[in-house]
Amino acid sequence: MSEIDDLRARVAELEARLAAPKGPLVSPLAVDLPDLPAVAGVRFATARAGVKYAGRTDVMLCVCDPGTVVAGTLTRSATASGAVEDCRAKLGHGGPDGWAIVVNSGNANAFTGRNGARSVQAVVQAASKATGVPGGHVLTSSTGVIGEPMAHERIVAVLDDCAAALSPGGMADAARAIMTTDTYPKGAVRTVDMDGATVTVAGIAKGSGMIAPDMATMLAYVFTDAAVTREALQAMVSASVDATFNAVSVDTDTSTSDTLIVAATGKAGNAPVEAPDGPLAEALHAVLHDLALQIVRDGEGATKLIEARVTGAHDAADARRVAKAIVDSPLVKTAVAGEDANWGRVVMAVGKSGARADRDRLSIRFGDLEVARDGVRAEGYDEAAATAHVRGEHVVIAVDLGLGDGAATAYGCDLTYRYVEINADYRS
Amino acid sequence: MSEIDDLRARVAELEARLAAPKGPLVSPLAVDLPDLPAVAGVRFATARAGVKYAGRTDVMLCVCDPGTVVAGTLTRSATASGAVEDCRAKLGHGGPDGWAIVVNSGNANAFTGRNGARSVQAVVQAASKATGVPGGHVLTSSTGVIGEPMAHERIVAVLDDCAAALSPGGMADAARAIMTTDTYPKGAVRTVDMDGATVTVAGIAKGSGMIAPDMATMLAYVFTDAAVTREALQAMVSASVDATFNAVSVDTDTSTSDTLIVAATGKAGNAPVEAPDGPLAEALHAVLHDLALQIVRDGEGATKLIEARVTGAHDAADARRVAKAIVDSPLVKTAVAGEDANWGRVVMAVGKSGARADRDRLSIRFGDLEVARDGVRAEGYDEAAATAHVRGEHVVIAVDLGLGDGAATAYGCDLTYRYVEINADYRS
Repeated sequence: MSEIDDLRARVAELEARLAAPKGPLVSPLAVDLPDLPAVAGVRFATARAGVKYAGRTDVMLCVCDPGTVVAGTLTRSATASGAVEDCRAKLGHGGPDGWAIVVNSGNANAFTGRNGARSVQAVVQAASKATGVPGGHVLTSSTGVIGEPMAHERIVAVLDDCAAALSPGGMADAARAIMTTDTYPKGAVRTVDMDGATVTVAGIAKGSGMIAPDMATMLAYVFTDAAVTREALQAMVSASVDATFNAVSVDTDTSTSDTLIVAATGKAGNAPVEAPDGPLAEALHAVLHDLALQIVRDGEGATKLIEARVTGAHDAADARRVAKAIVDSPLVKTAVAGEDANWGRVVMAVGKSGARADRDRLSIRFGDLEVARDGVRAEGYDEAAATAHVRGEHVVIAVDLGLGDGAATAYGCDLTYRYVEINADYRS
Repeated sequence: MSEIDDLRARVAELEARLAAPKGPLVSPLAVDLPDLPAVAGVRFATARAGVKYAGRTDVMLCVCDPGTVVAGTLTRSATASGAVEDCRAKLGHGGPDGWAIVVNSGNANAFTGRNGARSVQAVVQAASKATGVPGGHVLTSSTGVIGEPMAHERIVAVLDDCAAALSPGGMADAARAIMTTDTYPKGAVRTVDMDGATVTVAGIAKGSGMIAPDMATMLAYVFTDAAVTREALQAMVSASVDATFNAVSVDTDTSTSDTLIVAATGKAGNAPVEAPDGPLAEALHAVLHDLALQIVRDGEGATKLIEARVTGAHDAADARRVAKAIVDSPLVKTAVAGEDANWGRVVMAVGKSGARADRDRLSIRFGDLEVARDGVRAEGYDEAAATAHVRGEHVVIAVDLGLGDGAATAYGCDLTYRYVEINADYRS
C-alpha cells in the first residue's frame, strides 16, 4: 500500500520535473512595450474573469465612439471559431453608432458548435447592455484552448464593471489581458501629420504559437483617430496584410481564431482620407509590420529571428512561396537554432517550395556573405564568416533565383528544444 | 500488484526520459531487419570508401543480370541532384543489357552544378568499366550533406573491388551502407506464388530526416525475380507510391535526392506479367508500404508513430490534404510527444489543410475512443482514456469529415527534443 503511494508520488514528482519550464520565461528577442498613447475616441478596460487563468487579467473591453469605421481580416481556417464567424458577419457594415470589442484569453471557444455560438451571443448581449453599443456593433474574440466549453458567464459577469472603468489610457493593460503563451505584451505606435492635424495609429497584438502565414493573422487590434472612409481603411488593411501578418510564421500552424481589427474614430481633425495610399496607409502599414514582427520575436521557443529575402523570382507569388518555404522548414529552423550555416537546407527549401527555379541560376547569401552563386558553392566561401552571421540574433537569408523581378520577404524564427517543451507539456 | 508494476514501469520510463535528454541511439520504434533472401539475377557488394564517414561502409554496388527491367520514381524537387537527373534520363529505357546501381552515403552531390554532373559521370563510367554494364544502364544515388563538393574519386577507387566481390546474399549489407542519420537498416520481403513459381520481392531503403510526402520518396531499391513488362512494372510503382512513400512525413522537408528504383530480373519462371494489378502488384505494394513505414519509424527523434486516417472527405485529394496536415502539424506532433490528447490541435489542422470541411459534421477518434462528434466534444468524453491511447507507441487519429466518400491515410511521427538536437547539432 505504502509502496503504491510512494510510486504514485514518484510518478507525480518526475512528471512535474519533466513539465517544469527549463527555458527562459521571456523571449530573448523580446521588445519593450512602447508608450501606448490615448487615441481620441477609444477607451479600454480589463478584468480578471478567471476564464482559465488565475491571478491575471483575461478580459479586455474596448469602446470606440460613434462615427468610428472599422475594417479587418479574419482567419481563412475552415474550422474558424464562433467569434470569428460573428465578426465576419459584422465587419463591412457601417452606421453612426460606436463599436465595442470584447476579447478573452484562456479559451478559444472554437469547435464548440452551437454552444459556442450561444457563448458569443451571450457576451455580445451583455457588452451591448453594459456599453449602450448595439449588438450588431459588438465584436468579440476568444483565444486559448480549443474544444473545451467556455465559461462565458464569467466574462458576462465582469462587463458592467469594465464598462464603468473605461479609460483612454488603458491600451497597455489591454495588451496584457489578451496574452496566452506570449512572453511579453505587444504594441506599436506611429504618428503622422495630416492637414495640420497629428494623426495617431496605435495597436496591440498577441500571438506566440499556432502562427502561420498566408491565411490571416493572430489577434491584433489597431486604433487611429484619423478620419477615413471605411472602404479606404479596408483597402489599406487588405493591401498591408500580405507583407505583414501573412509574411510571418512560427510553426506553419494556422489558428482557428485569427483576427485583425482596425478602428478609425475620425477625431484627429484631418480631411477624411478616401484613397487607399498615402501617409495614413504608410503609418498603418508600419504599425502592422511592427506588430507582426513582435509576434515572430515571441515565437514559442524562439532565440533568433529569421528573415528570408527572395529576389529574382519569376513573379511575386513564386517569391512568396520560396520565402515561406525557407522560414517554414524545420531543417532550416533547427540549423539556425544550432548556429549551423547549413545553406544546403536552403537549397532544399527552394526545391520543395513549388516555385519555378533553375538550380544553376540560384544564388544565396547569409547576411552580406555570398555562400552560393549560380548553383554552386561560392568561390572562396568562408564557413567561419557564415557561422558568425548565424550566431547573431537576426539571421538574414537572401536568395536570388535569377529568373525575373519577383520579390518577397518572410519572417520566421528558429526551432528549439523550448518549442517542443512548451507544446509537449502545456495545453494552450 | 499490476498497478505496482505499471507504476514501476512508469517511474523507470520517466527516469529514463529525465536522465537521457540526448535520446536513444536507436529509434524506440526500430524494426528488425528481416532475413533478406537472394533474388535470382541480383548481386550486391559494399565498400568503405571514406566519402565522409570513417569506420563503416558507405558505397554499395548492385548488378542485375541482362533481361532485367527497371521502373522508378524520383524527387519532384526543383533543386534535384545530378544523380537524380541522370536517373531520370535513363529510367524508361529498356534493352537486353543488365543494370548496375551505385549508391554512396555521406555526400548528396546536390547543388554542386557542373562539378556534380562530372562526379556522376565519373562514377557511372567507373562502374560500367568494372561491371561491363553499359553506362546508359548505370544508375547512381548519393545521400548526405548538400552543397559540398563530392570526393567521387574515393567512390571510383572502390568499384573494381566491389565488382569482384558481388554476391547474391549481400542485400542486408547494402541496406547498412546506404544509411545516413538512420538508426537501423531497413528492408522488407514478400513472396508470392505465380504460375507454380515462387516470386520474391525484396527491397531496402534509407531515410530518417528531410522526409516529406507528396513529392517522391527517399532512397529505396526493390528487387524481384518476377517476369514483368517494364510498362506494367512502372504502372505498379506509380499506383503504389501515393499510398506508401508519398503518404509518410517526418518533417515536411523534401529531399533533393529522393529515389525509388524497382528492378525485375525475370528469373522466377512465372508467365510474364503484363497487367498493373494482381499478386505481383500486391506484393510490391506491401514491400513499398513496409519500407515507407520503416522510414517513419526511424524519423529523426521519433518515439511514436502517428497514423492519420481520414474518411468522409469530399474526395480523395481532400482526404489526403487533411491526413497530411495532421501528421505535418508541429503542434499535433509535439502534443503526441508530450502524451497530451490535445485533439483541439487536430481541429486546427483540419481547418488549415485547405480541404473542404464543415465544422459541425466533423468527428474525431483517438484509437477507438470518440473524442468529438458533429463539431463538439463527444458526450462523456474520457480524457484519461484518450491520454492512455496517446501514451502508446502507435497513435491513431481518425477524422471523419461527414461530407463524402474520400478517404486517405498518412503516417508521421512525433516531434521531440531529439529531432531538434539531431538537426541543430549535426550537419547531415
